[in-house]
Amino acid sequence: MSAPASSSRQDLSRAAARREQILCAAAQCFREFGFHAASITKISRAAGMSPGHIYHYFANKEAIIAAIIAQDLEVLLALSSELRAAPDVRANLLQRAGERVGNHLDPEMAGLKLEIAAEAARNPAVAKVVREADEASRQELAATIHAIRQASGYTDSDRTIDGIVEVIICLFEGMLLRAIRNPDLAQDELALRIRDVIAGLLEVPTATD
Amino acid sequence: MSAPASSSRQDLSRAAARREQILCAAAQCFREFGFHAASITKISRAAGMSPGHIYHYFANKEAIIAAIIAQDLEVLLALSSELRAAPDVRANLLQRAGERVGNHLDPEMAGLKLEIAAEAARNPAVAKVVREADEASRQELAATIHAIRQASGYTDSDRTIDGIVEVIICLFEGMLLRAIRNPDLAQDELALRIRDVIAGLLEVPTATD
Repeated sequence: MSAPASSSRQDLSRAAARREQILCAAAQCFREFGFHAASITKISRAAGMSPGHIYHYFANKEAIIAAIIAQDLEVLLALSSELRAAPDVRANLLQRAGERVGNHLDPEMAGLKLEIAAEAARNPAVAKVVREADEASRQELAATIHAIRQASGYTDSDRTIDGIVEVIICLFEGMLLRAIRNPDLAQDELALRIRDVIAGLLEVPTATD
Repeated sequence: MSAPASSSRQDLSRAAARREQILCAAAQCFREFGFHAASITKISRAAGMSPGHIYHYFANKEAIIAAIIAQDLEVLLALSSELRAAPDVRANLLQRAGERVGNHLDPEMAGLKLEIAAEAARNPAVAKVVREADEASRQELAATIHAIRQASGYTDSDRTIDGIVEVIICLFEGMLLRAIRNPDLAQDELALRIRDVIAGLLEVPTATD
């Protein structure tokens, strides 16, 4: 009985590798040509597969974008649960925020995320996936901010927490545009300032609503 | 002599109106179809003109994007010089920052700016125009921040000023992504927080380099 089980595991991992190969090729094509001009033919050529093979894994380009977004979200959720498990959540958040500045200033990653957002602005199917992932990310960050502020004695309304979360996300998403518009910016200085701004946000007074 | 002069003024204003009509139509097409799929034919149809007419004013789509960016920059420079002429520059900056949050959260404007940035990530001609405009905007904001901090007794290095400028721009450019990714965000709460963060940045200690 062990041979078939092992060969089915091999099939599964081969399928996962194929899927990953398609996602990488598609990400490259979306960045390089834009979502519309990145045809399945172009993606299949970049992935070194037939178009039929691509359609075996993904119904259309929207499904490929959804898979790229789901992958990003998974990484973020894993990071976030690691973060909240740290002995000092506040210190851990500030350290990781500084570390993630470089990641957001990577022009390739930024180009892809901007292309997806520009597509979401005109394509309801992409907008839906982007917004659901954004909501999941916001909830995670809100839980982290809530835990940190509760430990410091704050009793916050959702409005206060959501406001802090939005500012932090604005900072990081803004970096995606900075990566393209000012590729020579001083990364260390920005990381330092961002860290300070987040530290300040963790100490804003509770809103009285 | 007055008749020809007046008719030449009319020609000029008619040309300016035509140019404006093309820029509006192109902005709409870039947003709706993306830069690549927004052909001159589509733009001419949206503008209600012949393609030949479009080419009379603009050599290609890159020239149209450059004109859109130049228009935005002009508005920003005008705002900025108004701001620095105010009796209380600090109070004026904070007030205007709060006011401009709504403007940055407009999904149509955000969609266009994200499309231009995504195109800049793959198109060197667009990148050049975007980066030159970004540099001019940064210099303006740096002059404003420098004036405010100097009046408060700070003697800053360029590094400190540039870091503050980058964080403020990150916040505003981040809003362009927030407009698409979280269209239901609480705008007033965000404006309040952004104002506080900028007020804090105006009081960061001078870096000792």
